[in-house]
Amino acid sequence: MSENKNNANSANIAILGASGYTGVEAIRLLANNYNYNIIGLTADSKAGKSILEVYPHLNVMNLPDLKKIEDINFSQVDAVISCLPHGKTQKILSDIPKHIKVCDLSADFRFDDIYMYEKVYDKKHEARKLQEEVIYGLTEINRVKIKNARFVSNPGCYPTSALLPILPLIDNNIIQYGNIVVDSKSGVSGAGRTLKENLLFGEVSDSFSAYGLVNHRHRPEIQSQIDKIGSTEYKVLFTPHLLPIKRGILSTIYLNINDKFNLDDVVNCLKDKYSEEKFVHYSETLPSTHDVRGTNICKMKAVFDPITNKIIIISVIDNLIKGASGQAIQNLNLMMGFKEAEGLINFPMFP
Amino acid sequence: MSENKNNANSANIAILGASGYTGVEAIRLLANNYNYNIIGLTADSKAGKSILEVYPHLNVMNLPDLKKIEDINFSQVDAVISCLPHGKTQKILSDIPKHIKVCDLSADFRFDDIYMYEKVYDKKHEARKLQEEVIYGLTEINRVKIKNARFVSNPGCYPTSALLPILPLIDNNIIQYGNIVVDSKSGVSGAGRTLKENLLFGEVSDSFSAYGLVNHRHRPEIQSQIDKIGSTEYKVLFTPHLLPIKRGILSTIYLNINDKFNLDDVVNCLKDKYSEEKFVHYSETLPSTHDVRGTNICKMKAVFDPITNKIIIISVIDNLIKGASGQAIQNLNLMMGFKEAEGLINFPMFP
Amino acid sequence: MSENKNNANSANIAILGASGYTGVEAIRLLANNYNYNIIGLTADSKAGKSILEVYPHLNVMNLPDLKKIEDINFSQVDAVISCLPHGKTQKILSDIPKHIKVCDLSADFRFDDIYMYEKVYDKKHEARKLQEEVIYGLTEINRVKIKNARFVSNPGCYPTSALLPILPLIDNNIIQYGNIVVDSKSGVSGAGRTLKENLLFGEVSDSFSAYGLVNHRHRPEIQSQIDKIGSTEYKVLFTPHLLPIKRGILSTIYLNINDKFNLDDVVNCLKDKYSEEKFVHYSETLPSTHDVRGTNICKMKAVFDPITNKIIIISVIDNLIKGASGQAIQNLNLMMGFKEAEGLINFPMFP
Amino acid sequence: MSENKNNANSANIAILGASGYTGVEAIRLLANNYNYNIIGLTADSKAGKSILEVYPHLNVMNLPDLKKIEDINFSQVDAVISCLPHGKTQKILSDIPKHIKVCDLSADFRFDDIYMYEKVYDKKHEARKLQEEVIYGLTEINRVKIKNARFVSNPGCYPTSALLPILPLIDNNIIQYGNIVVDSKSGVSGAGRTLKENLLFGEVSDSFSAYGLVNHRHRPEIQSQIDKIGSTEYKVLFTPHLLPIKRGILSTIYLNINDKFNLDDVVNCLKDKYSEEKFVHYSETLPSTHDVRGTNICKMKAVFDPITNKIIIISVIDNLIKGASGQAIQNLNLMMGFKEAEGLINFPMFP
Repeated sequence: MSENKNNANSANIAILGASGYTGVEAIRLLANNYNYNIIGLTADSKAGKSILEVYPHLNVMNLPDLKKIEDINFSQVDAVISCLPHGKTQKILSDIPKHIKVCDLSADFRFDDIYMYEKVYDKKHEARKLQEEVIYGLTEINRVKIKNARFVSNPGCYPTSALLPILPLIDNNIIQYGNIVVDSKSGVSGAGRTLKENLLFGEVSDSFSAYGLVNHRHRPEIQSQIDKIGSTEYKVLFTPHLLPIKRGILSTIYLNINDKFNLDDVVNCLKDKYSEEKFVHYSETLPSTHDVRGTNICKMKAVFDPITNKIIIISVIDNLIKGASGQAIQNLNLMMGFKEAEGLINFPMFP
Repeated sequence: MSENKNNANSANIAILGASGYTGVEAIRLLANNYNYNIIGLTADSKAGKSILEVYPHLNVMNLPDLKKIEDINFSQVDAVISCLPHGKTQKILSDIPKHIKVCDLSADFRFDDIYMYEKVYDKKHEARKLQEEVIYGLTEINRVKIKNARFVSNPGCYPTSALLPILPLIDNNIIQYGNIVVDSKSGVSGAGRTLKENLLFGEVSDSFSAYGLVNHRHRPEIQSQIDKIGSTEYKVLFTPHLLPIKRGILSTIYLNINDKFNLDDVVNCLKDKYSEEKFVHYSETLPSTHDVRGTNICKMKAVFDPITNKIIIISVIDNLIKGASGQAIQNLNLMMGFKEAEGLINFPMFP
Repeated sequence: MSENKNNANSANIAILGASGYTGVEAIRLLANNYNYNIIGLTADSKAGKSILEVYPHLNVMNLPDLKKIEDINFSQVDAVISCLPHGKTQKILSDIPKHIKVCDLSADFRFDDIYMYEKVYDKKHEARKLQEEVIYGLTEINRVKIKNARFVSNPGCYPTSALLPILPLIDNNIIQYGNIVVDSKSGVSGAGRTLKENLLFGEVSDSFSAYGLVNHRHRPEIQSQIDKIGSTEYKVLFTPHLLPIKRGILSTIYLNINDKFNLDDVVNCLKDKYSEEKFVHYSETLPSTHDVRGTNICKMKAVFDPITNKIIIISVIDNLIKGASGQAIQNLNLMMGFKEAEGLINFPMFP
Repeated sequence: MSENKNNANSANIAILGASGYTGVEAIRLLANNYNYNIIGLTADSKAGKSILEVYPHLNVMNLPDLKKIEDINFSQVDAVISCLPHGKTQKILSDIPKHIKVCDLSADFRFDDIYMYEKVYDKKHEARKLQEEVIYGLTEINRVKIKNARFVSNPGCYPTSALLPILPLIDNNIIQYGNIVVDSKSGVSGAGRTLKENLLFGEVSDSFSAYGLVNHRHRPEIQSQIDKIGSTEYKVLFTPHLLPIKRGILSTIYLNINDKFNLDDVVNCLKDKYSEEKFVHYSETLPSTHDVRGTNICKMKAVFDPITNKIIIISVIDNLIKGASGQAIQNLNLMMGFKEAEGLINFPMFP
């Protein structure tokens, strides 16, 4: 991994906020991708340190030391993956030169509707101008726009797992107006490398709990994407839970379909939409988080219940890859004109 | 623990099928209960062995060796906890002398309606006469009947977690007719000490999956109890998931309430119903499986969502205690005229 | 658990530093012990809060709110369990009235030799006078002294697991002079409820590592107890490791025995020493941490290797019980004149 | 991953015993390796099935169905990785055509000394002739011989973790004659996908135990490799333990060095030996199993204890990769004339 990447068309990339879980996952995924040279890593509180002091397992790669953002020479940078914290990203990314392609993993640019953003996050939007050009980076849904984008806002991990199965069904008018219940379960890495008592091994291990009922911020994010493609007649209810696993989201989605449709229509709609996709698969068996761990893949399967007339969809992703850094690189690949799947093809590690 | 229990009124108890997880949990819970003397333990395939060969951790107690059922002298037995497998229990328990109080943990006697049983389990009911006297052992709901019962069928673990919050709300006509979605997550001990690939540590650890969608046998069990107390206008949808934890069930329940009610009515209904209960608690905070692990306690909390008008209830139990052997002893305590909570009061071990 | 304990001889107990893992474990263990009334709980940073805000699972018991130490009325207190941090305990416990029996779980009083303490902990001893009366609370070794003690210093968790098998063998001159290698593995709760990155679920789960090689402070603690009973010719080498489990220590001990002894002598020595003990057992099978989880029990087994002439001893405890709060209560029971095992008899929860 | 590998020099490979953990790991590691085409997968009991029925997560790759060994057309096969069970491999691999390069992961060919094999495994060696040409596949030690070998016997997982640090020190006469204590801890995948009670999640999770004391078969394997390079004056003592993790071995090694050497000599010896290696690294920090999970890397670090004069070495590997399928491919790469590291370079997944 210490070889130079002598790819003539390779891009120089900087990762902002490189010391968190999504940052280090971006580094890992870029390590074997010959299209990118990592030339900058930032981490404000750890500036000056080697990334190896923070993550000793990275010692098999030549990586630049951690810097402050202001010490990055952005004139040499072609692409940025930003893993900066929610609420602090708008200002910083507004100041980055416009020749740079940006994929942002924070929640700061996920709402087209600035009013909605300000309501949900209870703070003033600090990059209103920039927001106008932002594309929501759910790759398989917005691929064409992403190809032409300069600035992509990467979806939240929960929304990725929910929207990939829901949006095609709404787009084809299969889902009945009314409630869509999304009961989601996520591994701890979704909360980042955060020092909180409820993320300690002693508290998480051998336990399970729900949190953020009704009010979780990924709910309006899901809703706003549904509103855009469908109708405001859909009402999403979202319940997140914390799993004692490191990676993985499984969403169990309950919805009703319009009278003229049946399970076959649901299955065919999803298969048609995703049959050519490398990273989204309709699964014949019920997918487990294990099946996608370590990959950029989303798997889904739908079942019909004749008693309640409900469709139940199970959808799984690795929250740090398709739910974060993997989808970011997939988007950047498109934005940079590289092969979309470059550096993202691999199997889950099992067991 | 080697002391004799010199309680004049103590009962002689036999545990049938003692070598599984629910059997060994019954032994553990009875160990400090001065009302019972364990005088018989059966395990067909391991008959003749000491229970210590199967569970070395039990070596601090004097326990009888494992026997075949036919080698138990039932004339000396006052009470039986039966942990025999589903489908094999009806015949065996039909033959046990009628002076013995029985609490059965299998699914064999959970349906009053024999036709329903035969449909769900796809086999002929082999104890039709006995079925007529069986009481469904959801203690806080059927306490009076259980006190006078000779034969109690212990509820399934998932049904216990779902019915305790749902039944009082139905009984008070608070829940709207229509769908009730029960999205449940259970630790592996719910599947018993079974040699299956999907229960190996290598497969379960760091993973999460759904199973038994639409068709799980606990669904008609929940439905039949709702039908009995309420109306067949309620339609339960039940989705179980396998958690990488040893013990614990958390059910997330989605339902609608009738127009004249609000969240306060839901909360007050549950508080009223359970305020005097030692083992069922309405919780002010969102309960975790951790909060009840190792105890006979069920905790629940309700939340209202103004956008979808849905009530969401989180309910947690330890599947091996309130969901199995603990509730069995609670029921037996009532049936034998002992204090209901005897031997069942303790804290969860934390962490 | 809300009943008053109407035991005429019951003692009023205060737990100092009640909001950590050892504090909350002491509360749990005292809950069913009719000898003690918990009348004070302290936690400086959380003073004024209910303990339920810190540990919601304690809601089934009536407990006093958390206070500052200076707000405890010590004139009404008969006994204290101190779970205060290392280095801060000496000063505080020096000021407590002398009618109170104290069991201290910190490392502050574990060295008779003040010079040794100051060297190991690199700080001045602040309670030299008090140190003189301190008894090292390894119950099965120092029982008589503990009975008559006013102030007991509870052993470290690792030392408990190592010394219980080693000391009787040294006392009987079975172990050869020279090296004793103690390779220990501990669950995370040994580190307390501490906000450190290396204790996060994401870092600990599915991982294993050694730490504190050569220099861990439990090494001189083990050494000093061996010196006292045996000879300075023994040299202990101690290597701790961090297990991805919540509770439990397993120590693998390698030692040589003198020529005239064999494995039978080792086994008989340990059996003789502990045959009457309720909490220390020689095991016929290799013990697992699972076998003692949730109990005050230490299990050990010795094996002989004819090729290297080494004895290998496996010893297991629950670090929070026999390694901390359980042994503390066992000691207090003796100091107060209660039955030694009161409130400490129970089975491990399995699975 | 469905692309054809149009590498003119690519080799056709068959994996025998493909349905176990080492088999499926070999498949995963070969998936992105353009040197090999997987043209045969065998699994006797599952012959006729698609590998996807056994491992649904493999559905992103075109793989041949599982066959019986006798249904493989070996004339088209260039290389074999054999993951067949211990004791059954000798006979089968004797019958494979001699043009095929073989790397065997069983224990059947790990002893040059047939008498020793028969003693340790208590069965007759059934491939005495073949044994003569076998090379022990510890790559960094036997690289030259492996390059020229037709048949390589892959080391056991524990021996790999122990021998990589020990052998260079012996080769340089640094280690004193006498005992070398290897205290090893392994994740469950080392036991394979075996249906045993002690490998169930309910038993392994939150637990830790030792097993196979004194008599584990990896002990004579380690000893025999030391004997070959050094002297029979070294006596290895080996104690394995079962960790509640999926992958990873950490060995803690205790040894004495000759008087004229010190820690620097140990460190320099290991650094000199491995400085040019891609997969064996001397680490400046104490390595965790996490640091090598998912990689073919072994990390080690040595520490000196002035009190006992012992050197302590911590060594970590991923038991399924450097301890099994990864090292097998590393060996095959050499045997086939490919780049040694091809397809094996990657980062650990963190967290």
